[in-house]
Amino acid sequence: MHKVIFDTDPGIDDAMALLFLHRHPDIDLIGVTTVFGNAPIEITTRNAQFLKQQWMIDAPVAQGAGKTFDPSRPDGHFPTFIHGDDGLGNIGVPETVNVPLDPRAAHHFIIDTVKANPGEVTLIAVGRMTNLALALKTDPDFAALVKEVIIMGGAFDINGNVSPAAEANIHGDPEAADLVFTAAWPVTVIGLDVTTKTVMTSGFLADMVKENGAAVQLLSDLSQFYINFYNMRTGDGMVVHDSCACVYLTNPELFETRSGAIRVVCGGLADGQTIQKPDGVTFPPGNWDNYPSQKVCTRIEPDRVLSVIRSAIVRGERG
Amino acid sequence: MHKVIFDTDPGIDDAMALLFLHRHPDIDLIGVTTVFGNAPIEITTRNAQFLKQQWMIDAPVAQGAGKTFDPSRPDGHFPTFIHGDDGLGNIGVPETVNVPLDPRAAHHFIIDTVKANPGEVTLIAVGRMTNLALALKTDPDFAALVKEVIIMGGAFDINGNVSPAAEANIHGDPEAADLVFTAAWPVTVIGLDVTTKTVMTSGFLADMVKENGAAVQLLSDLSQFYINFYNMRTGDGMVVHDSCACVYLTNPELFETRSGAIRVVCGGLADGQTIQKPDGVTFPPGNWDNYPSQKVCTRIEPDRVLSVIRSAIVRGERG
Repeated sequence: MHKVIFDTDPGIDDAMALLFLHRHPDIDLIGVTTVFGNAPIEITTRNAQFLKQQWMIDAPVAQGAGKTFDPSRPDGHFPTFIHGDDGLGNIGVPETVNVPLDPRAAHHFIIDTVKANPGEVTLIAVGRMTNLALALKTDPDFAALVKEVIIMGGAFDINGNVSPAAEANIHGDPEAADLVFTAAWPVTVIGLDVTTKTVMTSGFLADMVKENGAAVQLLSDLSQFYINFYNMRTGDGMVVHDSCACVYLTNPELFETRSGAIRVVCGGLADGQTIQKPDGVTFPPGNWDNYPSQKVCTRIEPDRVLSVIRSAIVRGERG
Repeated sequence: MHKVIFDTDPGIDDAMALLFLHRHPDIDLIGVTTVFGNAPIEITTRNAQFLKQQWMIDAPVAQGAGKTFDPSRPDGHFPTFIHGDDGLGNIGVPETVNVPLDPRAAHHFIIDTVKANPGEVTLIAVGRMTNLALALKTDPDFAALVKEVIIMGGAFDINGNVSPAAEANIHGDPEAADLVFTAAWPVTVIGLDVTTKTVMTSGFLADMVKENGAAVQLLSDLSQFYINFYNMRTGDGMVVHDSCACVYLTNPELFETRSGAIRVVCGGLADGQTIQKPDGVTFPPGNWDNYPSQKVCTRIEPDRVLSVIRSAIVRGERG
């Protein structure tokens, strides 16, 4: 069993990834931590509570950061045109959801849970890296106790999505991401290079609803707004960014990776850009030296990844 | 006939490109301007004089910039391990060469020559962009009189060569390059994405020497140091960066291009990185807006490009 803490900003593709983690037979979801990104922190947290309630998820929810790691960064805009005003496709999520939160801030929850399960916890982070960076700042030593970190974010050999240089999760908190990528723990990054190749059509989603029931119906309902957004860009279907990162945990054989130190540009024209120095390529001494080698996904098998998502999600409630 | 001013920092692959431009039957080389880069300005200028003398090139040589467009940038190092201490592979170029220089600074020479041939001159720039930027700053209106600008520089969908982010020509003067790419003239950029695929083996070069005579022997002699550098990196042969830009002029059908505004990162981790916003891709408002669409080469036919180089160079002296 993979013990997982899911750091998320639901967010529509976050919702699918959450249901995947909840239902996959080889995954033990032991915590959900929220972060701002697709919507403000109050909304992403409320949405996590809502999905926990609707899908009867046991894992506790801990609220995380609502502003960037470097507090002097100006506030950005929230992508309501992608995720809706409520962050879940305008399906009418109640304003408040009566589901208790863990009393700890997300980064404290992460540190405590990792220390209680040394060497066993995988962190899957699919929003801004703020909570992970705060955890590293609070207790740098805890990194050595984390089994693996899997990130959805970045764009390496292709353009970003919020600028030609940068992807949204990293652009939303570049200083945090640079700290996470350069820390002494094993990181694998699932960026736009592979996620944008992984498009779930509306027909595929409708078939999942037929096979399963109400839980997938909710997923389908909240995804329609997002599908409409992608209809104008990539044709029918939705890019399932966050689920790709979760599938990497259970099925790394469906991905190719490249190793090397990763840095994040902080400030200027390329603010939030992720750049890897591939291992084995020689450069003059520079800013990538003496940082740990991390993995970037460069290839994916989209159809097989979609099959893995479908198998996990339609298998019904856990237990 | 293509009227060409060649802006260059010889430099070994510069020498091959110069011989190509001098000998190609459809090219009228009307000026050579020098810039620092592969070596200090005194050496690249002396080398241009030496090659003009050895190859009996009629075109005048005008000396250009010896420091960056923004004079506050710290001085960099010269790549003597690639081009030799003399910039031409340590073949023993005389310390001074008795060939007169044009009395004008390179950027004035460029402006004057373009104005004398309105709409007819192609600028091929294969070193740092300093001279072109100085020309734009001195007389912004002259850009409208330039037929085309072809640049060897940058790295778009791949790593750079002086850092994971940046290619040497652009990294050597990022502010100049950003000005050149965003000016109102048509620019095509031949970067590492395509030049690194274009490797001339030592056998290919030796065959050219057999077909032709002393002029190509000199080219072969000065290239051996550079071939040794590449032997340790890419196997037998030399990457003919600068000649690729010249072949684009005569044989654009051997390249694929992508259109969109190009900006250069100035400062920070990604200093000197070139980033294009492809036309037709939507981003939030940002730093690429309202700049002219320029072309980036994304594909090349290396074998056919090498054949074009060979045909031009072995055809013997002009006239």
